[in-house]
Amino acid sequence: MTKKIAFLGLGNMGIPIAQNLINAGHEVSIYNRSAVKAQQLTGNYFLANSPAEAVADKDFVFTMLADDNALNQICTGENGFILALKKGAIHISMSTIAPETSAILNDIHHKNGSIYLSSPVFGRPTAAAEAKLFICLSGQDEAKQLAKPLLEQVGQAVYDFGEDVKAANVLKLTGNFMIMASMETMAEAFTLAEKNGLDRKQVADFFGNTVFNAPIYKNYGTLIANNNYQPVGFKSTLGFKDARLASKMALDAEMPAPLLNLVYNRLLSAIAQGKGEQDWAESIAKGVSNDAGI
Amino acid sequence: MTKKIAFLGLGNMGIPIAQNLINAGHEVSIYNRSAVKAQQLTGNYFLANSPAEAVADKDFVFTMLADDNALNQICTGENGFILALKKGAIHISMSTIAPETSAILNDIHHKNGSIYLSSPVFGRPTAAAEAKLFICLSGQDEAKQLAKPLLEQVGQAVYDFGEDVKAANVLKLTGNFMIMASMETMAEAFTLAEKNGLDRKQVADFFGNTVFNAPIYKNYGTLIANNNYQPVGFKSTLGFKDARLASKMALDAEMPAPLLNLVYNRLLSAIAQGKGEQDWAESIAKGVSNDAGI
Amino acid sequence: MTKKIAFLGLGNMGIPIAQNLINAGHEVSIYNRSAVKAQQLTGNYFLANSPAEAVADKDFVFTMLADDNALNQICTGENGFILALKKGAIHISMSTIAPETSAILNDIHHKNGSIYLSSPVFGRPTAAAEAKLFICLSGQDEAKQLAKPLLEQVGQAVYDFGEDVKAANVLKLTGNFMIMASMETMAEAFTLAEKNGLDRKQVADFFGNTVFNAPIYKNYGTLIANNNYQPVGFKSTLGFKDARLASKMALDAEMPAPLLNLVYNRLLSAIAQGKGEQDWAESIAKGVSNDAGI
Amino acid sequence: MTKKIAFLGLGNMGIPIAQNLINAGHEVSIYNRSAVKAQQLTGNYFLANSPAEAVADKDFVFTMLADDNALNQICTGENGFILALKKGAIHISMSTIAPETSAILNDIHHKNGSIYLSSPVFGRPTAAAEAKLFICLSGQDEAKQLAKPLLEQVGQAVYDFGEDVKAANVLKLTGNFMIMASMETMAEAFTLAEKNGLDRKQVADFFGNTVFNAPIYKNYGTLIANNNYQPVGFKSTLGFKDARLASKMALDAEMPAPLLNLVYNRLLSAIAQGKGEQDWAESIAKGVSNDAGI
Repeated sequence: MTKKIAFLGLGNMGIPIAQNLINAGHEVSIYNRSAVKAQQLTGNYFLANSPAEAVADKDFVFTMLADDNALNQICTGENGFILALKKGAIHISMSTIAPETSAILNDIHHKNGSIYLSSPVFGRPTAAAEAKLFICLSGQDEAKQLAKPLLEQVGQAVYDFGEDVKAANVLKLTGNFMIMASMETMAEAFTLAEKNGLDRKQVADFFGNTVFNAPIYKNYGTLIANNNYQPVGFKSTLGFKDARLASKMALDAEMPAPLLNLVYNRLLSAIAQGKGEQDWAESIAKGVSNDAGI
Repeated sequence: MTKKIAFLGLGNMGIPIAQNLINAGHEVSIYNRSAVKAQQLTGNYFLANSPAEAVADKDFVFTMLADDNALNQICTGENGFILALKKGAIHISMSTIAPETSAILNDIHHKNGSIYLSSPVFGRPTAAAEAKLFICLSGQDEAKQLAKPLLEQVGQAVYDFGEDVKAANVLKLTGNFMIMASMETMAEAFTLAEKNGLDRKQVADFFGNTVFNAPIYKNYGTLIANNNYQPVGFKSTLGFKDARLASKMALDAEMPAPLLNLVYNRLLSAIAQGKGEQDWAESIAKGVSNDAGI
Repeated sequence: MTKKIAFLGLGNMGIPIAQNLINAGHEVSIYNRSAVKAQQLTGNYFLANSPAEAVADKDFVFTMLADDNALNQICTGENGFILALKKGAIHISMSTIAPETSAILNDIHHKNGSIYLSSPVFGRPTAAAEAKLFICLSGQDEAKQLAKPLLEQVGQAVYDFGEDVKAANVLKLTGNFMIMASMETMAEAFTLAEKNGLDRKQVADFFGNTVFNAPIYKNYGTLIANNNYQPVGFKSTLGFKDARLASKMALDAEMPAPLLNLVYNRLLSAIAQGKGEQDWAESIAKGVSNDAGI
Repeated sequence: MTKKIAFLGLGNMGIPIAQNLINAGHEVSIYNRSAVKAQQLTGNYFLANSPAEAVADKDFVFTMLADDNALNQICTGENGFILALKKGAIHISMSTIAPETSAILNDIHHKNGSIYLSSPVFGRPTAAAEAKLFICLSGQDEAKQLAKPLLEQVGQAVYDFGEDVKAANVLKLTGNFMIMASMETMAEAFTLAEKNGLDRKQVADFFGNTVFNAPIYKNYGTLIANNNYQPVGFKSTLGFKDARLASKMALDAEMPAPLLNLVYNRLLSAIAQGKGEQDWAESIAKGVSNDAGI
């Protein structure tokens, strides 16, 4: 069934998700601060000149932005779309942001007569291109039922975390912490094995095919075993943003999290050394290697 | 093809492995310090009164002991089997031990005219019962070729890590470190999510079915999400032994390993508090929860 | 020379400082949210009913509050004194607060025609009573020259950290981090020695009289060696506030600080366990002891 | 009263201590593996060709060696002095070594009819030259009474830690841990202050003159504030040896010590990077600075 959709934010993740919505035959209008990005899209879509133009008369507005700031800007900022939304429109917010940001936007939507859903995703651009994302969802039940069919067109499964819009954001940040922790785990493990005479690629292969045969260990294991982080999949500055948000959650919840501190420091150190643009896996793994003199 | 086999060490892991060798129709003699454990075995086997009696005229000697000490004792100790081994016999050493212990035993075997192979395994007693262990192997190539068909009868796959007998032990300790690190990761993650309003079981389910869908995350994730560690699968004292051996490897290799320090301290703290008998997952996860006041 | 002074904030530290100003013969008006605290003061002073009344026609306004919030409240909040200040009056701000809070208040004072100086202190209530505080000072030079004679009446030395009002706050938070780090150092050291057969009091005495013969090691060393933290000198919640502010400084400056993380977690854990009211030294030292099973 | 003394080990610390014993008029025979070091001594002394020759007919034997190995070698090794000692001779062992090494040597001396005292010192070569060392002492009471007058000629005070020879070694290692922890404290503190706009030398001066006015903070504070570690006072490899011995004590005593882990890793990392010869303060402080990108 064709839906009227706006998609805002054409980053590495936004492009393939938007493309899948276009491919599914929906009526899609696109907005990105830098319009040239839209040239990577194929098929039928409308390129809007402003967030407000993009969302006008749409039933669903997807956003996939770099951070809380960018999302706030495009939604409630000077040229934000919030007042242009039609009543009852559903904002499907896919960015990785602070739970608190979702709570605030949810309130604003509520007053505005529109609906806010948190819908962050797990998966990399290639997974997004194949519509194989894992999608987390939280917010008002009725709206979630309407959003699910669309989300199933861009992901392999949708997981419902209840009515609190913050929940899916909590889960996403928790997951990003787990990914960073896995990188530290692999970096220490492979370095330990290498310095004791093993081949780190063979070590990565063994674990990635046996007791750790999960996507995170397979994908990042390959990067870390080969010391090859090109092309950059996720910048250290973005990874640090998430480590910082997770630390804030830990503080608010009164919870010491020493492993979180450790990966937070790995990323912060890379940034302090001017390496914020490198892949987050490189920042963590090179931190371990460098401390070990290799 | 029926082989003459001795199996020494009937712990949680030894029993199912020995059973699979008996089931495969080999001529198996068994030794365990406490002979009563052998009553858990079914089928045809010979119960020896000493390690030496067990290994006499056998072509393969499997050992699966609790630690380096127990292995040294049964092999080269006062009533050890080493001198009773026939020339060319192959000792398949499955215990999780220091690489250095393997190197020393390897030398002794060499002088003795017998052969030592390192063959530690990954998998829990239930996996052992189903012959689904992942088996690591290192040592002399010719002997490995002879050992592999037997190992394939107790595991789902055999991975060859070369001719250095230490290699498979390095890998096993590296893997046990990775498992402990995963427990810390999950413990911090689930506690972070729980203290921010989510259900830890739902969180564990989500990750265990998506980006972390590997045995370690599924199995330990269930324990840690449910805060239920009965029955004890692997005691904290044994886990700490491995953390200590891995730390020794890191020291010898001149490598800082802060995440290893963290899990080492979790287990050491549990032992200091008199909780050395509890499951290693409980020691790590309760350390996190307790610090967070839950 | 008699000055017209207002003193706001009669906590553990405020009382003895205010008393010394009264004793020095100044014309002192006092304000505290809970006026009953003023009964601990002796000599001549005026008890004001509001911050505004306290500061009216005064040349110097001292504030010594629990945190940034309390300071903002009393200065620029609903019943704050800022508009009641006479032109050219000097606000000597002694609270331990975020550098940023000083910067903001400094701007407000500037627009208001009054002057803001940062003047946090080191020393405990007993040191304050003996006018032996170490006083840090930063802000406009001319105002500092006017403030110094007064500060010398409540401390043993005044240290000038330049014209940036933030500087003295940075120094104070840095110092409080150092104190917490010293507590962790002593707690680990005394526990290590104790568990290896020494008497922790003798250990504390030795170091406090030799290579660590500084007030911090002598005073906190006694508490930590004796495991006696009564009466509470500085609550864990206040200590944690400072650890949090120092962490914020480290984040803003892009600096990993693992020892800061460690003491931050000690205090946060105590708070999570409902022990926020206990002395900060107890939270840190009991964290160490508890992990060691004693 | 003139005593017959042997002094073995002319390192940075041994030379000034031996000189003070010579200056005090004792009959001193000297031994050092590299005899040329003795040319730095002045006054009357006998240069022996072997440890055995040095100790023959002496009542007191001082040893000040680099590590456990060197001490064992000179005492009980191939050309060790133990059998050449006269009955009742007192071995005053000043090296920083494992408590266990002292216990073993103590037993050997006991069987040999001689006496072993642990007597490690705090202070740097300049303090040794001025006879201002702080001297720790443990072992048999009667022997300690005989040793004290001599020790008072090379130190400013002698502290008695009881009859267990291990005690003074435990204290010494505990103290070296505290010194390393202070370096980490200062390195993080000065870097935090510097990155927030303060001058690190002014920060070091302030704390070294106020609440942290102890030798450790003054001396190492100057090095760390100025980033100038020449000449090398104590090599990182030696500092790491002590961190390792302290970690061993913590393990044996079942005690997690995260701050000890942290400084252990700083030194190990420097060694792994080929910087083992640099001052231990440089290894710790540069570790902090480097992580912070400065």
